[in-house]
Amino acid sequence: MSDQMQRITLASRPTGAPSAENFSLETCAVPTPGPDEVLVKLHYMSLDPYMRGRMDDAKSYAAPVPIGGTMEAGAVGEVVASNSPAFQPGDFVFGMFGWVSHGRLPANQLQKLDPNHGPITAALGVLGMPGLTGWHGLNEYGKPKAGETLVVAAATGPVGSMVGQLAKRAGLRTVGIAGGAEKCALAVDRFGFDACLDHRAYKDASALRKDLGAACPNGIDIYFENVGGKVLEAVLPLMNSYGRIPVCGMISYYGGAKGADADLTAPMIWRNVLVKFLSVQGFIIMNHFDRYPAFQKDVGPLVANGEIQFLEDIAIGLENAPAAFMALLKGGNMGKQIVKLV
Amino acid sequence: MSDQMQRITLASRPTGAPSAENFSLETCAVPTPGPDEVLVKLHYMSLDPYMRGRMDDAKSYAAPVPIGGTMEAGAVGEVVASNSPAFQPGDFVFGMFGWVSHGRLPANQLQKLDPNHGPITAALGVLGMPGLTGWHGLNEYGKPKAGETLVVAAATGPVGSMVGQLAKRAGLRTVGIAGGAEKCALAVDRFGFDACLDHRAYKDASALRKDLGAACPNGIDIYFENVGGKVLEAVLPLMNSYGRIPVCGMISYYGGAKGADADLTAPMIWRNVLVKFLSVQGFIIMNHFDRYPAFQKDVGPLVANGEIQFLEDIAIGLENAPAAFMALLKGGNMGKQIVKLV
Repeated sequence: MSDQMQRITLASRPTGAPSAENFSLETCAVPTPGPDEVLVKLHYMSLDPYMRGRMDDAKSYAAPVPIGGTMEAGAVGEVVASNSPAFQPGDFVFGMFGWVSHGRLPANQLQKLDPNHGPITAALGVLGMPGLTGWHGLNEYGKPKAGETLVVAAATGPVGSMVGQLAKRAGLRTVGIAGGAEKCALAVDRFGFDACLDHRAYKDASALRKDLGAACPNGIDIYFENVGGKVLEAVLPLMNSYGRIPVCGMISYYGGAKGADADLTAPMIWRNVLVKFLSVQGFIIMNHFDRYPAFQKDVGPLVANGEIQFLEDIAIGLENAPAAFMALLKGGNMGKQIVKLV
Repeated sequence: MSDQMQRITLASRPTGAPSAENFSLETCAVPTPGPDEVLVKLHYMSLDPYMRGRMDDAKSYAAPVPIGGTMEAGAVGEVVASNSPAFQPGDFVFGMFGWVSHGRLPANQLQKLDPNHGPITAALGVLGMPGLTGWHGLNEYGKPKAGETLVVAAATGPVGSMVGQLAKRAGLRTVGIAGGAEKCALAVDRFGFDACLDHRAYKDASALRKDLGAACPNGIDIYFENVGGKVLEAVLPLMNSYGRIPVCGMISYYGGAKGADADLTAPMIWRNVLVKFLSVQGFIIMNHFDRYPAFQKDVGPLVANGEIQFLEDIAIGLENAPAAFMALLKGGNMGKQIVKLV
């Protein structure tokens, strides 16, 4: 193995959408693992919308990436050296290594993967943080009941597709929202949504709302929120009394965008919360990793036997991670975005 | 008893703040009670902010008052005729009679009062819907824990003063917000708030936020929402992770006002919900009347022995109800607003 590795750092903070100059590809020495540490050669890394938040110097649930710091990411790879009895060279593991070709982490921050249990990329998507996000948010805060109607955007993404499939299995009517006809067809054909609307086909929230209302003849009981903006504005007036809104993301607001949703005002949100007795719950999955074993037990077999479908979009090469990430923020990916590193 | 009675109807729908011409004082015949009905001569009626919502022709949790219809209100009075074995002339009762001098209701919609158990006006405030709203919202959705910090506006009103006193008893730091120095002094001296800020003394939300932050050195864990607008905007950035926001009203938005809170945007609300894992729950007490016996059992003795304080602001005469209601919406009352009818 070469003693050199590559990493991508945050060169500067973006204003609005990130661009190539915000990232820097650097070569450095492969680190040496210290006591209880494990050195891993990464095979795949994950790209997720939350990473956009880390690029801002704003108070959030996690500290921002410092200028010059390595971009954060979950990644899977093969152990090449270990100072922990828990891991041997050749083991496959998941950890928060960042945008790197090689990484070193304490053994207690690693999760061993069983390569016989499906592709190791599943640990980044359907059986990783996005899948857990959908499963936990839907069950814990969405409280689905058979006969109800659920709406989720980014319906072909790893969170939305998990939410839609689990809700369908629970007997709900599932209506997805996605960007483009191809994604909408995929949502229905592959992920079993009863309907899927292309948000790009609507000039504003009220036009989207009209068709969404037709697709949800009994109103909306659960809106699984991961986008905000125009979709939120379309959904709110259609919510039924006692509706639930788990909030795990709001990609349309990332990068400081105020959105083109000028009619979505604070009073509009607040009034809907009050007059419909809505329950709105923000959450971030890093606080609920204790649910991982229960998730894996529940969903793992369904993925293994094909009852839960998943889709991955794989970019090739660490050097292409920034471009893939910028595309992801614009909805350019088709399924869970992953970067192949070897 | 005269066979004539008075009532106040909705003459026209207001735009923004109501004015005198939106109300009409009318004389009509005292109704005759039908089978199982009870005729009551009202002594006191309640004025509450929610009534503003009923004046609009907008979809809400309750139907609007029709033009020409009697304004809604809870009221207490004395039975003068009864076709129900459950009530006798001379009994004192509470019911949703409206803005009327006399009213007729089915017996099963009445609640008998014990005039030996404190003033009958308590059934309109501290031991009525406002008190129940505070008790239920705080305990069920606020989930107070000793050592936490609670903020509530309209701190000397019947909901805010109940919330503040119950939270203080539960070991929380309580910070009120009220309009004017007199109300702030009352909040601290009579209702035991640790601090109370006069929202009128601040030109905008960020000025209010600065002093609110100083009054809440450990942040805010529970914001009991009954006003919206500037206070909400000041509070949101101060909320702690895992904070709870029961939402029972938003008086600053009533009458279609967009508020002077131009910086309180939908993304600001949504971002705070997400990054602090907030729990926001809208509720309206009419859906939780089943909790009344538990509330009465819990709080009734505390009111009787003075451990829970209350304050009433009594206007005289049904004809003065519109003026008192208009003043209430501007915070002109001092304590629970009641109209004495006899």
